[in-house]
Amino acid sequence: MAGFDHRIFNFSAGPSAIPTQVLEKAQSELLNFKASGMSVMEMSHRSEIYEEVIGSAQSKLLSLLGLNSDEYSCLFLQGGARLQFAMVPLNFLDKSQHADLIHTGHWTKLAMKELEKIAAVNLVASSEADNYSHLPELKEQDFSKDAIYVHYCSNNTIAGTQWRNFQNPHAKAVVVDMSSDILSRQLDYGQFDLIYAGAQKNLGPSGVTIVVIKRSWLKNARKDIPSILSYHSFSEAAYSMYNTPPTFAIYLVGLVLEWIEGFGGIAEIEKQNDAKAESLYSFIDNSKFFSCPVKNEDRSKMNVVFRIKDNDQALEKQFVQEAAQEGLSGLKGHRVVGGCRASIYNAMPAEGVNALIEFMKKFEQQH
Amino acid sequence: MAGFDHRIFNFSAGPSAIPTQVLEKAQSELLNFKASGMSVMEMSHRSEIYEEVIGSAQSKLLSLLGLNSDEYSCLFLQGGARLQFAMVPLNFLDKSQHADLIHTGHWTKLAMKELEKIAAVNLVASSEADNYSHLPELKEQDFSKDAIYVHYCSNNTIAGTQWRNFQNPHAKAVVVDMSSDILSRQLDYGQFDLIYAGAQKNLGPSGVTIVVIKRSWLKNARKDIPSILSYHSFSEAAYSMYNTPPTFAIYLVGLVLEWIEGFGGIAEIEKQNDAKAESLYSFIDNSKFFSCPVKNEDRSKMNVVFRIKDNDQALEKQFVQEAAQEGLSGLKGHRVVGGCRASIYNAMPAEGVNALIEFMKKFEQQH
Repeated sequence: MAGFDHRIFNFSAGPSAIPTQVLEKAQSELLNFKASGMSVMEMSHRSEIYEEVIGSAQSKLLSLLGLNSDEYSCLFLQGGARLQFAMVPLNFLDKSQHADLIHTGHWTKLAMKELEKIAAVNLVASSEADNYSHLPELKEQDFSKDAIYVHYCSNNTIAGTQWRNFQNPHAKAVVVDMSSDILSRQLDYGQFDLIYAGAQKNLGPSGVTIVVIKRSWLKNARKDIPSILSYHSFSEAAYSMYNTPPTFAIYLVGLVLEWIEGFGGIAEIEKQNDAKAESLYSFIDNSKFFSCPVKNEDRSKMNVVFRIKDNDQALEKQFVQEAAQEGLSGLKGHRVVGGCRASIYNAMPAEGVNALIEFMKKFEQQH
Repeated sequence: MAGFDHRIFNFSAGPSAIPTQVLEKAQSELLNFKASGMSVMEMSHRSEIYEEVIGSAQSKLLSLLGLNSDEYSCLFLQGGARLQFAMVPLNFLDKSQHADLIHTGHWTKLAMKELEKIAAVNLVASSEADNYSHLPELKEQDFSKDAIYVHYCSNNTIAGTQWRNFQNPHAKAVVVDMSSDILSRQLDYGQFDLIYAGAQKNLGPSGVTIVVIKRSWLKNARKDIPSILSYHSFSEAAYSMYNTPPTFAIYLVGLVLEWIEGFGGIAEIEKQNDAKAESLYSFIDNSKFFSCPVKNEDRSKMNVVFRIKDNDQALEKQFVQEAAQEGLSGLKGHRVVGGCRASIYNAMPAEGVNALIEFMKKFEQQH
């Protein structure tokens, strides 16, 4: 994992690849941002010049999602999805209440565990028995009529599955953990009441968490909790700055959003993402050496999970190592499941996926 | 606040100045860190190369504080001091218990408010009646024998006061908010059971919070709280990575720590800090135009608060603006108190303070 004088293709699940242009821009202004004589990371978050940075990132994000600031509040928080696992129930539930949860992998399991510390969970459906290799079938009668909200994880980074539709038969609030596919595809984002996402997959570096919350639902949030855990605290503050935000991480998210706009918005990003996933899955499906354990129609376009020869661990290890030496990094599956995984988020260019396929062909021939 | 082709002197209270050498190093390796072919912010936090980054920052921090990892756990968290205002009581108190609190400004007030949501507070002493212009006198009988811990804010950024000693007559645990003076001076850091500090003043960019906790006290922390709010979760995880940490912010903290080491450690930093504070306060005290509202022996060496002609607001505004035009930025007092303030953290060189004094002389002559 050393010895490169050029940028390689990084298939890490998160933190993950950031567009080179974004890094180049950040590099060029790192010591002196817009002739201010200082770095973005040195300036007061209450300065006009920084308010423009954060305000513009908030507008861009809502605009790319097709939402508007009258209906939705856009917050830049810290603590990752894990903090949201606790914050959502703390804000919206009391002990006597419950939420619906669709259980599709490692992260919904953790979300469920945190939810259960605060209130009750109605488990609508689970694919745990099949090791999350498909999405569970959802039946209307399994949703609770009294649930305060339904929790989905839109894309399961470890299992490699992704929801196309979000059923909500009783028209409850919908909370979605979009950490690994936000802004990767066109969707009616207005169907969600609360979207959260760590930035470190499709949006920038780790250390900032995007929360987009419907104002009409936000009204229901409790106020008797620690202020730093209250969505109200942030939503009511100018530019969502209840406290000092992670200013540099937000600046980078803004640059990534600008890059997405320059790419042609989500519509164009989605086309590229579809094409990348299609070529990689096709190659795997046509191979007798590589295989994908995920049910065809549930496959993620962000995280392509695959195995080598019925999960030959020695060979998989060799594959991951040799790929890394050739500048194809981060192909090891998550430590809880093993195998291989290629995370092909927005910032991964088609050439990266093509290079991976070429390497896979070569490796297959050699073994 | 625009038009500089060089780096200026930044007196902001936080986020604040970062050593130019640190930014230059970060800039040089922003697109390709140690020949990995990627930026630090793109690499998996579980990769060996990143574990070296975070592990080395943790060791350096403990070592600079004169502490060791057998006795102390060093955590890199998110959420700022504000999250610590809630986390400390959540981890160490139940409703029937209480903590001692020494009230010295805006931030201890907020800490107290959050503490009161979770348990009870014994207010040992307060200087609120005098607008925090001095530190309150501490009397042994005002400390509670049954308090679980005593809360101090070592340096009051807004009021401009700083504790030299930390009384603890009943030998309880001591929790200290060191957000604005950590690593700025020699001190027996081993007297504290829990130190926390947002990085954005003396340690790096915003978005990472340092928590140094005595392992023997950590044992008392509760386990029945949300996992992301539990110190155990982080302390038990390899490199304190219970979840994805703010990887780039931590990398920058590591570079700042390296810079402090290169400077000669805290002893040398403190000498420079003492000299900077001495020259600025001396100038103010010898002026009939500028004045410092803070009691002499309680003055902060980090945040020098001053007024112009009995708080002439129009003149103060003009001072701040003209200074900014001359490349002396961030001299406005905190929005809750007004006036002027020069934050002269570790990264502010002596030349910056000298340039400020020269400007103050000139401004005084003109008015």
